[in-house]
Amino acid sequence: MPEFSSTVRVRYAETDKMGVAYHANYLVWFEVARCNLLRSLGSTYRDLEERGVMLPVIEARCAYRAPARYDDELEIRTSGALLSPARVEFTYAVRRRADGAALAEGRTEHAVVDQRGRPRRLPEDIQGVLA
Amino acid sequence: MPEFSSTVRVRYAETDKMGVAYHANYLVWFEVARCNLLRSLGSTYRDLEERGVMLPVIEARCAYRAPARYDDELEIRTSGALLSPARVEFTYAVRRRADGAALAEGRTEHAVVDQRGRPRRLPEDIQGVLA
Amino acid sequence: MPEFSSTVRVRYAETDKMGVAYHANYLVWFEVARCNLLRSLGSTYRDLEERGVMLPVIEARCAYRAPARYDDELEIRTSGALLSPARVEFTYAVRRRADGAALAEGRTEHAVVDQRGRPRRLPEDIQGVLA
Amino acid sequence: MPEFSSTVRVRYAETDKMGVAYHANYLVWFEVARCNLLRSLGSTYRDLEERGVMLPVIEARCAYRAPARYDDELEIRTSGALLSPARVEFTYAVRRRADGAALAEGRTEHAVVDQRGRPRRLPEDIQGVLA
Repeated sequence: MPEFSSTVRVRYAETDKMGVAYHANYLVWFEVARCNLLRSLGSTYRDLEERGVMLPVIEARCAYRAPARYDDELEIRTSGALLSPARVEFTYAVRRRADGAALAEGRTEHAVVDQRGRPRRLPEDIQGVLA
Repeated sequence: MPEFSSTVRVRYAETDKMGVAYHANYLVWFEVARCNLLRSLGSTYRDLEERGVMLPVIEARCAYRAPARYDDELEIRTSGALLSPARVEFTYAVRRRADGAALAEGRTEHAVVDQRGRPRRLPEDIQGVLA
Repeated sequence: MPEFSSTVRVRYAETDKMGVAYHANYLVWFEVARCNLLRSLGSTYRDLEERGVMLPVIEARCAYRAPARYDDELEIRTSGALLSPARVEFTYAVRRRADGAALAEGRTEHAVVDQRGRPRRLPEDIQGVLA
Repeated sequence: MPEFSSTVRVRYAETDKMGVAYHANYLVWFEVARCNLLRSLGSTYRDLEERGVMLPVIEARCAYRAPARYDDELEIRTSGALLSPARVEFTYAVRRRADGAALAEGRTEHAVVDQRGRPRRLPEDIQGVLA
């Protein structure tokens, strides 16, 4: 189960009036992280889509431990796993780089579909790296 | 356990290149829905914050059944429940108004804290309506 | 030159750590407003796209007079004008409903293109209502 | 007039159903770029705010030349200039790294205010680097 570490820096646009990062942005950062993971494995999500493979999110969850603040550099550790030839899962752990504080953990589950939204199998090469 | 129905219309900004609503936006719509629920109960989240009560999300999840598309009118049914005097939960069900299709279900859990982030009890009047 | 008035309520997600609505969201609200304008004229932007007409933004500007705050109800007055058969402009004025305060004014200019991004003329019926 | 080059990669969340980056995101990227510029000059916008200096956007504009697509790496060249001791401007040029295509140009103008929104002068050290 390959793992990969990505970095994002909290944008002003991503904060809210509580002075911290708005919770929905973690799902966006998860997307950044899993795309970086795929890239590190020799594929890109853009390539996948061009080959007719989409990975829509069918379930997402996130537990928030401590707030991220504006300009914080966050490390997102991600790993992916094949649940079936047509179902993939990614898990995420978010830390603040400056002090190592654990900020959040999450998980997304994805269907594998073609451009018309019909179930299909993940290509063998991607199955290989996620297995 | 009071329930309330809100409507949002999918904005162009909320779609992605798959042609459907991007999944993180459901968490934003959940926020709109629970704030409308509070308003319907005679309080507003803005008032709550001005009284020194914040309800940061400590856990969020969403299961996606079918895609929402640009310009779709969505109905979000929400209900809230008191888990403890310092812990609240809301659940959500999202349907497309046009055909009644069930699009997603979700849940958020919230701590009750003061402006400095310290745990506190929910005011009695709000406890009353959520119990 | 038809005019139309839309209402949006500032979402928590749209605020930033300054405690006010983040400036980029005005462009999103402008989009909501011009789509409502088209709808009021008997067409929808979704229909337009299904007829192979896209209106990508080629220029946008906004002047900010006073901040919008969380939960504020905003009125956005919009009007559209045909600059040429292949060029459209919309202008916007944003007020806070509660006190009528002028918050912002803006303008967007749009090309008229087909699904492949090639210039095309706006359909006659839409030209008619915007002229 | 110092200049600085930042890189952002277009996120899936930032695309829309036209298959390209949604136009409002350029304002967000501009914010990333000017904060990086300040950082390169030895200050950070977070520090500025902690010193009681806010730079709210009072005018923003962007001209869009060609669409950015998902996963594109974008270079944003930014420079800042002092219009007065209490007024700052930044300009931006966005290019796609892969082919150097010019995608957009923009400008933001900012007031200098304290935490209560009252006009104030920019600190001397920041004036120095922007002059």
